[in-house]
Amino acid sequence: MEETYTDVPAEEKEESIDYLEEREELTGQRIRDMLEQKQYKELKEELEHNMYPVDLAEILAEFDQKQMVMVFRLLAKEEAAETFAYMNSDMREVLINALTDSELEEVMEEMYLDDTVDVLEEMPANVVDRLLMATNEETRVQINQLLQYPEDSAGSIMNVDYIALRKDMTVADSILKIRQVGLNRETIYTCYVTEKRKLIGLVDVKELLTTSESKTIEEIMETNTLYAYTTDDQEDVARTITKYGLIALPIVDHEMCMVGIVTVDDAMLVLQEEETEDISIMAGVSPNEETYFGTGVFKHVRGRIPWLLFLMLSATTTQMIMNHYEKALAVMPQLAGFIPMLMGTGGNCGSQSSTLVIRGIAVGEIEFKDIGKVIFKEVRVALLVSAALSVVNGLRILLMGQGDPMIAVTIGATMACTIVIAKIVGGTLPLLAKKIGLDPAIMATPLISTLVDTSTVTVYFMIVSAVFKM
Amino acid sequence: MEETYTDVPAEEKEESIDYLEEREELTGQRIRDMLEQKQYKELKEELEHNMYPVDLAEILAEFDQKQMVMVFRLLAKEEAAETFAYMNSDMREVLINALTDSELEEVMEEMYLDDTVDVLEEMPANVVDRLLMATNEETRVQINQLLQYPEDSAGSIMNVDYIALRKDMTVADSILKIRQVGLNRETIYTCYVTEKRKLIGLVDVKELLTTSESKTIEEIMETNTLYAYTTDDQEDVARTITKYGLIALPIVDHEMCMVGIVTVDDAMLVLQEEETEDISIMAGVSPNEETYFGTGVFKHVRGRIPWLLFLMLSATTTQMIMNHYEKALAVMPQLAGFIPMLMGTGGNCGSQSSTLVIRGIAVGEIEFKDIGKVIFKEVRVALLVSAALSVVNGLRILLMGQGDPMIAVTIGATMACTIVIAKIVGGTLPLLAKKIGLDPAIMATPLISTLVDTSTVTVYFMIVSAVFKM
Repeated sequence: MEETYTDVPAEEKEESIDYLEEREELTGQRIRDMLEQKQYKELKEELEHNMYPVDLAEILAEFDQKQMVMVFRLLAKEEAAETFAYMNSDMREVLINALTDSELEEVMEEMYLDDTVDVLEEMPANVVDRLLMATNEETRVQINQLLQYPEDSAGSIMNVDYIALRKDMTVADSILKIRQVGLNRETIYTCYVTEKRKLIGLVDVKELLTTSESKTIEEIMETNTLYAYTTDDQEDVARTITKYGLIALPIVDHEMCMVGIVTVDDAMLVLQEEETEDISIMAGVSPNEETYFGTGVFKHVRGRIPWLLFLMLSATTTQMIMNHYEKALAVMPQLAGFIPMLMGTGGNCGSQSSTLVIRGIAVGEIEFKDIGKVIFKEVRVALLVSAALSVVNGLRILLMGQGDPMIAVTIGATMACTIVIAKIVGGTLPLLAKKIGLDPAIMATPLISTLVDTSTVTVYFMIVSAVFKM
Repeated sequence: MEETYTDVPAEEKEESIDYLEEREELTGQRIRDMLEQKQYKELKEELEHNMYPVDLAEILAEFDQKQMVMVFRLLAKEEAAETFAYMNSDMREVLINALTDSELEEVMEEMYLDDTVDVLEEMPANVVDRLLMATNEETRVQINQLLQYPEDSAGSIMNVDYIALRKDMTVADSILKIRQVGLNRETIYTCYVTEKRKLIGLVDVKELLTTSESKTIEEIMETNTLYAYTTDDQEDVARTITKYGLIALPIVDHEMCMVGIVTVDDAMLVLQEEETEDISIMAGVSPNEETYFGTGVFKHVRGRIPWLLFLMLSATTTQMIMNHYEKALAVMPQLAGFIPMLMGTGGNCGSQSSTLVIRGIAVGEIEFKDIGKVIFKEVRVALLVSAALSVVNGLRILLMGQGDPMIAVTIGATMACTIVIAKIVGGTLPLLAKKIGLDPAIMATPLISTLVDTSTVTVYFMIVSAVFKM
């Protein structure tokens, strides 16, 4: 702690150099300039010490093909592999076509298997062949195994590099093993204890570093270990990692044999993707893996039209109901003026409920068995909300002197019914969707409000005809 | 790898015991039973080896106070502290009142400082005093410092426990230091190199374990180090950790002095919270930290009513516009029937755009400077979408023999205008909100659709009166 809280006289501070602020940021422009001035040595040096692969991938996306390849060739093996893993598929293809077989081999050697698999999944067959040619036999076997796991399964995002220890090893042995094999592992902070390939426990590196070297793994290993199956959903795996604050989760096959790990960094990306996907679906947009700007206009249109069409056409029901009451409207046209407000309120009430429930399902709080609890809660909320809104709205109507208090009553009654219906529909449909294996997120705003619209108009005119005897 | 891919004959597999499946799950019911049968020793043992603090906190939430305290007293120091950190504020208060000062001291000693601060932030003053009394002087100083950081800042979620190394230390020295101080650190996987408290670089434990013990830290330290300031927004910090796949990010004050770290597990929780918050706001619900079921009915109502009221009243504009055209409606009441469909389509188009942009802002893809690009993209999308929808809808009207082709034209024209307006409004408002320091998420569905409704109805009747000369 003393490093953190002792006070250090100002002048002393001045002396010490700011290693961290030493360098000028390496922007895309600076890279271009250095390329044009042929300062390859300097650029190579800068790229190695002053750039992160994920940033470089973003920068290179703006470069033309020739420049991109030039820069890529300047990268050290490891950086090259990592940068490659962060690129989009177009950039990757350009590179694969530009690189020589031996260059390609180097990249493939350095890449982590889970990244390699991601790359292969989106490449055209001929490129895949060329890439597989560039990898050695053993790796190829593993790649093929990984490619067989269903998309979005734990197996498809897991990393097959991890440290496996035997329970009879000593702490010293274990540290030695880490020293030997550790360097090319994506994570070595948790080691897994296996016996005949079966996962039997784990040991934190923390533990190894802080207990006597003569102890055996069996003495210090944690046997109450969390794990997931290769076929588990990647989102569930990510949620487990979040909930328990893990750095990695071991993945086993159905014989409990350890086959890989999912690391926290991959878990975070999975959650970010899944959330973007949910949010798109909730807005009635069919999701795609690419970013907003990364998605072309036509792809955007394709993603948005289906729901719009569906919702537009289903709005026909509402229209037919209203046409059925044309006479009433001809007599009291002011009745039409309330419809937008009624439908809007109903729709908003419904989407409030559905959104909260959808989120509850996503983070694992709400399950189908809770449907009764949800309804009970939503009904009580609905009653209080509708009471408040009807009163305020009734006053508004009277104050704005839209005369006839019976209208105020009609609207109030309609609103109350609508809100209750909306909250029940909004609260339950996501759970039903989940139950029948649909993504709860599709039961969000657009669909809910269209459903609610219909019931709103129906209830409205039923009450109208009752009150005004039409 | 051999552990992973060698084939092992089935019978051998049989022999090996499944350490992991050995135990029966420790459910709330089992705990209750063991309490009633006074099997305290067994329960203590089970709790230590067969239960995770986060799960226990969930289970205890269902227990009555007396049972909760009994179970808590059976926990080992560390488990007790962790479980306490996962409890909700009510449970914590119960415990604080039930525990003796010395018991409380033990818990406080074991808790990580960042958790302690979270606990204190939501406790009533008198409880806070009692808790602070239970902590030693040094800790109290640190706590007070942490309490001063603004809510949602990096400082408020950072952990002040980390390993600091000097650049003149050897690898051997460093490992020794970790051995000595490591055990009570929340994370030791990245060590930070400081000089007069200033952050000058970092060393991965991976590095320490895999390089020769005689090397000095200066030789192996990474100086191109990412860091954040105590005042940075916690969401930005979490996004950085995600983007670069870090396990921890060092936090410095404005003199570049290292004051703490934010660990990946906290980052994941921050992102989950922020996303839940965004999603609530997007649905027109004022967010709160608690879960769906954890929030009482009245709190739900308080959270949902403000927007509903606002939106209901703003719908009055639409109503006034429509009343203004009462005559038109009296003559052609069927015109009213199209309004829900038109408004629904406009609203959905708008919320599609706003949602995509809001998400783009959240994940850091879209910034205010991109507003032009967004408008350009949305307009092109809008034109294609409106073309498609108008045609389909025109056909529908003609097919359903709602006679007068002029109506089809009117609706088509209205729809086209609405969609373009909706997409521009939906695409730009979130960016404007962000620009003026509001949360972009409030520009989601409810607000957008209400705004779009007004313009839809206006456009509609303008076109109607133009076409039908009214």
